[in-house]
Amino acid sequence: MSARFRLILSILLGLPLCAATRARDLGVPFDGTPGPLDAITDVAGIEVGHTTLISGEGKQAVRTGVTVVWPRGKQSTIPSFGGWFSLNGNGEMTGTTWLEEGGLLAGPVLITNTHSVGLVRDSYIKWQVAHAPKGAEPDEWSLPVVAETWDGFLNDVNGFHVQEADVVKALESARSGAVAEGNVGGGTGMVCYGFKGGIGTASRRAGDYTVGVLVQCNCGRRPQLMIAGVPVGREIPDSVPYSRDYRHSGEDYGSIIIVVATDAPLLPHQTKRLARRASMGLARTGSVSGNGSGDIFIAFSTANPQAGGSSGVVQVSMLANDEMNPIFEATVEAVEEAIVNAMVGAETMTGYNGHTVMALPHDRLRQALTKYNKAR
Amino acid sequence: MSARFRLILSILLGLPLCAATRARDLGVPFDGTPGPLDAITDVAGIEVGHTTLISGEGKQAVRTGVTVVWPRGKQSTIPSFGGWFSLNGNGEMTGTTWLEEGGLLAGPVLITNTHSVGLVRDSYIKWQVAHAPKGAEPDEWSLPVVAETWDGFLNDVNGFHVQEADVVKALESARSGAVAEGNVGGGTGMVCYGFKGGIGTASRRAGDYTVGVLVQCNCGRRPQLMIAGVPVGREIPDSVPYSRDYRHSGEDYGSIIIVVATDAPLLPHQTKRLARRASMGLARTGSVSGNGSGDIFIAFSTANPQAGGSSGVVQVSMLANDEMNPIFEATVEAVEEAIVNAMVGAETMTGYNGHTVMALPHDRLRQALTKYNKAR
Amino acid sequence: MSARFRLILSILLGLPLCAATRARDLGVPFDGTPGPLDAITDVAGIEVGHTTLISGEGKQAVRTGVTVVWPRGKQSTIPSFGGWFSLNGNGEMTGTTWLEEGGLLAGPVLITNTHSVGLVRDSYIKWQVAHAPKGAEPDEWSLPVVAETWDGFLNDVNGFHVQEADVVKALESARSGAVAEGNVGGGTGMVCYGFKGGIGTASRRAGDYTVGVLVQCNCGRRPQLMIAGVPVGREIPDSVPYSRDYRHSGEDYGSIIIVVATDAPLLPHQTKRLARRASMGLARTGSVSGNGSGDIFIAFSTANPQAGGSSGVVQVSMLANDEMNPIFEATVEAVEEAIVNAMVGAETMTGYNGHTVMALPHDRLRQALTKYNKAR
Amino acid sequence: MSARFRLILSILLGLPLCAATRARDLGVPFDGTPGPLDAITDVAGIEVGHTTLISGEGKQAVRTGVTVVWPRGKQSTIPSFGGWFSLNGNGEMTGTTWLEEGGLLAGPVLITNTHSVGLVRDSYIKWQVAHAPKGAEPDEWSLPVVAETWDGFLNDVNGFHVQEADVVKALESARSGAVAEGNVGGGTGMVCYGFKGGIGTASRRAGDYTVGVLVQCNCGRRPQLMIAGVPVGREIPDSVPYSRDYRHSGEDYGSIIIVVATDAPLLPHQTKRLARRASMGLARTGSVSGNGSGDIFIAFSTANPQAGGSSGVVQVSMLANDEMNPIFEATVEAVEEAIVNAMVGAETMTGYNGHTVMALPHDRLRQALTKYNKAR
Repeated sequence: MSARFRLILSILLGLPLCAATRARDLGVPFDGTPGPLDAITDVAGIEVGHTTLISGEGKQAVRTGVTVVWPRGKQSTIPSFGGWFSLNGNGEMTGTTWLEEGGLLAGPVLITNTHSVGLVRDSYIKWQVAHAPKGAEPDEWSLPVVAETWDGFLNDVNGFHVQEADVVKALESARSGAVAEGNVGGGTGMVCYGFKGGIGTASRRAGDYTVGVLVQCNCGRRPQLMIAGVPVGREIPDSVPYSRDYRHSGEDYGSIIIVVATDAPLLPHQTKRLARRASMGLARTGSVSGNGSGDIFIAFSTANPQAGGSSGVVQVSMLANDEMNPIFEATVEAVEEAIVNAMVGAETMTGYNGHTVMALPHDRLRQALTKYNKAR
Repeated sequence: MSARFRLILSILLGLPLCAATRARDLGVPFDGTPGPLDAITDVAGIEVGHTTLISGEGKQAVRTGVTVVWPRGKQSTIPSFGGWFSLNGNGEMTGTTWLEEGGLLAGPVLITNTHSVGLVRDSYIKWQVAHAPKGAEPDEWSLPVVAETWDGFLNDVNGFHVQEADVVKALESARSGAVAEGNVGGGTGMVCYGFKGGIGTASRRAGDYTVGVLVQCNCGRRPQLMIAGVPVGREIPDSVPYSRDYRHSGEDYGSIIIVVATDAPLLPHQTKRLARRASMGLARTGSVSGNGSGDIFIAFSTANPQAGGSSGVVQVSMLANDEMNPIFEATVEAVEEAIVNAMVGAETMTGYNGHTVMALPHDRLRQALTKYNKAR
Repeated sequence: MSARFRLILSILLGLPLCAATRARDLGVPFDGTPGPLDAITDVAGIEVGHTTLISGEGKQAVRTGVTVVWPRGKQSTIPSFGGWFSLNGNGEMTGTTWLEEGGLLAGPVLITNTHSVGLVRDSYIKWQVAHAPKGAEPDEWSLPVVAETWDGFLNDVNGFHVQEADVVKALESARSGAVAEGNVGGGTGMVCYGFKGGIGTASRRAGDYTVGVLVQCNCGRRPQLMIAGVPVGREIPDSVPYSRDYRHSGEDYGSIIIVVATDAPLLPHQTKRLARRASMGLARTGSVSGNGSGDIFIAFSTANPQAGGSSGVVQVSMLANDEMNPIFEATVEAVEEAIVNAMVGAETMTGYNGHTVMALPHDRLRQALTKYNKAR
Repeated sequence: MSARFRLILSILLGLPLCAATRARDLGVPFDGTPGPLDAITDVAGIEVGHTTLISGEGKQAVRTGVTVVWPRGKQSTIPSFGGWFSLNGNGEMTGTTWLEEGGLLAGPVLITNTHSVGLVRDSYIKWQVAHAPKGAEPDEWSLPVVAETWDGFLNDVNGFHVQEADVVKALESARSGAVAEGNVGGGTGMVCYGFKGGIGTASRRAGDYTVGVLVQCNCGRRPQLMIAGVPVGREIPDSVPYSRDYRHSGEDYGSIIIVVATDAPLLPHQTKRLARRASMGLARTGSVSGNGSGDIFIAFSTANPQAGGSSGVVQVSMLANDEMNPIFEATVEAVEEAIVNAMVGAETMTGYNGHTVMALPHDRLRQALTKYNKAR
């Protein structure tokens, strides 16, 4: 989508006029056809909410938050078929045991920092209890999906700053439309390939269907970074974040959570196929999924609203396996772009203990693309 | 089913008049309600075929064979949703990688001895190629499901006696109706809890649905054997098969293959739930799934004949997860009974190198049940 | 162990003189040889702590808590090789993604109610941060293992009554020696086979090694209950807990968390083999692992304290696979006994909304054993 | 390694003087440092054997074979710790159930065409039985690892042309040193990204360790092909193999088997981490792992020859998880290069029914690299 067309579309869709720059605005030559917003919200019904917490400096620096992806709109706990995959499980995603067993994702996917997973999990349950319809059966339990990446380089992660109200705000402020990227929500304090990272999103059309992806990107080492086949990390080797207090400085000590959504009618075992493909989009950006990285992926289908039927026999739709290749291609491409968007959309941040992480400089990205004849 | 009713039914269904004795004929108090045949063939469409190879003595003793379970009748390769589980994977079941990925079982489940898995696999493909309809697309490949247990105590397993024609015979002679048990088909030379084992089957009604099970039982140590809660193995401690040439004599060096079939409309991830429950039926007979045992289970649903659709969107039926408890109960109960049937239906056999394995003595089983107030 | 010997041992070990009754005190004929305490604490180094919260009545009834199992003693975060298995994943156990990936369990296993998992998780991290040694590297994250079962029949689970201080108390009060059973810790409000359940433990000797098990038992329907092969649930069919407000009353809506510990030197993939065997111990008590049940099992080895080495090459010990059968047998037997101990050790409780759950009556258990010639 | 150094090395190692061209000879800029042979045989002890079957034309065209990778040299069945991963399981790899359970690979990895898996499996067992040492215990069974990709576009795959003698020849002719690539062994009739594919290999140094990879590459669509970040498939869009008889012509109907070997001392769960990384090397070449593709990966460690110890406690070495990043990087890089080597090393082939598959033209690859400023 050209920047011009993007501008027009922004006006038509009521988006902010000076929309943040995105990777394809800089001429990165991605494959495939994105949806109108090039965001996970191109999958109808999906709503995204962010609570961004930025305050203080030094040892009191709070740079964290919560991001929520509602598969079927705010407050809908109508389950979706879903599945997950752990490429490198040095991280947490709660709720996956039932996801694997029952094939169902009920409620939102929440993403935060490593040490706030519990608070976010229980806060969602409290919110759910408080908002249950009158007469709802009291013997229901909840197994929310909450994932994390570690933001302790920029955030006072051991200060446990996320509060119940922050979770509620993210839940209730979720909306369709364009999705803020970079230093927002759960991604606020994240570092990606040694550049400032965070939340990124993208989408692809795949025949009649749409695949949307949202990432919370906190992984990779600088020299690994590839964008559209160009070794951008080696072209911009400077200003790698480092602190002598940190054993893992400069290593791949981060993580990436990838959420893949589609309106294609996939059964649970088919959503797992998408989750595994997220690995391949990640690989295109240069990662080898380091030992310290929690690279955990969830995929779900918004088709089949009746999937969670609790009695009798339910009729559901299934895309034939033989028709899945375009969905696979879309998934890999959208993951790749969402990761780059997370970096392009982020801004340089100074946080915990005075640590600074530089944003990916747009001009130098563009130069690197040009050097390798890849600028579009 | 009383022995009398069984007799009448045998006549009506054209079964052999002097039908082999089965566990419930001896008063073993199983739970649940079996189907008319108390066999996997109570699931409509399922056909079972056996090729039994018995010849020679001593080092030339052939005591082996092939058993075939066709989910949708002979020669139907219409896929079924299926899944599998390995409780202790010291064995082989080919074809499971696609079963896990695609959720589909196309064609039969074949069971033989450990060293004939390859021959049986390729022979099925040859048969399939030879019987393909005119004009069938030539770029199809086949990934058959072939499982095994090791019969080298009674059979010259290193003689590789199963031949292509034996596989074809099992494939083509398969039929619905009563299923021969004990020393037949792939189960011919098997040993179960130190008694002669082999093929066993059973079924259960679960609401509107039927669950059928077929086992090739070759596992367990004598002292472990429990039947309906009675320590039958300790009550009959004598004549445990032993050979000083065999390191594993008396140990749990066997395996068990369990096939669970149902007409309940289950999606692939739901069939995996059944496969896992097979462990619990096995546990009721006393096994702890020994290190040397290949305890591998497959489950499939004969509903949804359109499951394997290769284009577009397919409408399929799914039993709600909340309705699965009766299916789980049926699975556990049918597995338990099928294992006992494998022993009750087997006869004492002398085979390789003069080794003899005693059949479970019916009268002493009955005595043991009586001793513990369990005889029905 | 006879009751008399038990008494003497209690005196020698400084245990409470009037120790709670346990299943084998009632003559239940379990197989195998337990350790001195017949508890998970027979595995050297293991410490168990409980915080039990019992207060209020009616809608304010608090009947919940936290149980902690420290693999290597209080405050030790030296990792152990471990693995896990989900027989029916309708529940939560956090931390399993790294357990599967890295093969390591660092820190304790915590068990609580479904809606307090998050609080317990983050509280453990806070405790860990507060107790970190001076100069500890600040870039470490924590992925605690916290599991749950649902106690909403007796406890005001939606009141979120577990507090950070409760977690700390369980962590810090943990000790070796005898383990309280029944209505304690995370098991306070649990229901098992329609009887009052909760925490149970047992152990087995397996050659030179010990296997210890702790369960938080909240699963099963009354008619399913088997004890030592005796249909105890059918013999005592009365007083099944029921509430017309509860859709799942009388169904298998509970869960069971099983912790298997051993000092045998097992590698991570071998601990997973133990975790799978927990299914078989559960099966012996009659469960078929109902759809609503979170039957999730974790196993770890306290051998190899160097397992978590963070640099270079580490020398570790591995028990040969061929030697694992006694460990498997021990695991199955100890799980079976621990479940029965959970019921035998529990007392009748009235809780949330006036619901009452009856304890398993000892005399009637004894009668049932006698009826089936199983009383020891 | 420069071409000149390569020449000298060839002489020293007794390799053929006019060694086949390899990807880095053409200036493809791979990352990392290969071992002396840039082959899986750089891992000490590994031997590779090929049987290549090329005969006939038209419907009688035989273009197939068998490739063997011996982890510890010909005829050694000393087990190695190993693991596997299925990225897209539309294929077969036998023996993986025990690999997963026991963590052990005993004997070679064999690779052939889809319809010869059974023959190859049983032939290996026969060979093993025939070569067992005198007095070997007769109660051992074998669960060989045999994998496949489908060569029916060039080979009369339904003619089942691989024979037992072909397997024996591959087993017995295996050797260390340089490995033939392209149209050899199991790779003889394979197609990779619409170019002639087959066997490829590469290696990387990772600190004190070596990672070696061998692939049988038969996957991918032409437009997907990326080499070192350059869209080679789009630069060379012509001569995509096609046959109107074949439904899947032009689609990703192939597969890829990847074997990852290392001398780093990895435990079974750690080898699985390598197997998962193979996905990322594959992703770098442009694949999205199509629905029809059997993308199945196995990894093993040649350290710890005592891994398969059958009694007592075995001391084994383990590389700390925190040290694995270089091994991960090496794996991803070596997989990427091995795939490109498979194409660079292959030659145009005409086979079944007159189908022709063009080799990747070296000059045009070079041009494409130059166009994108990537030629080295």
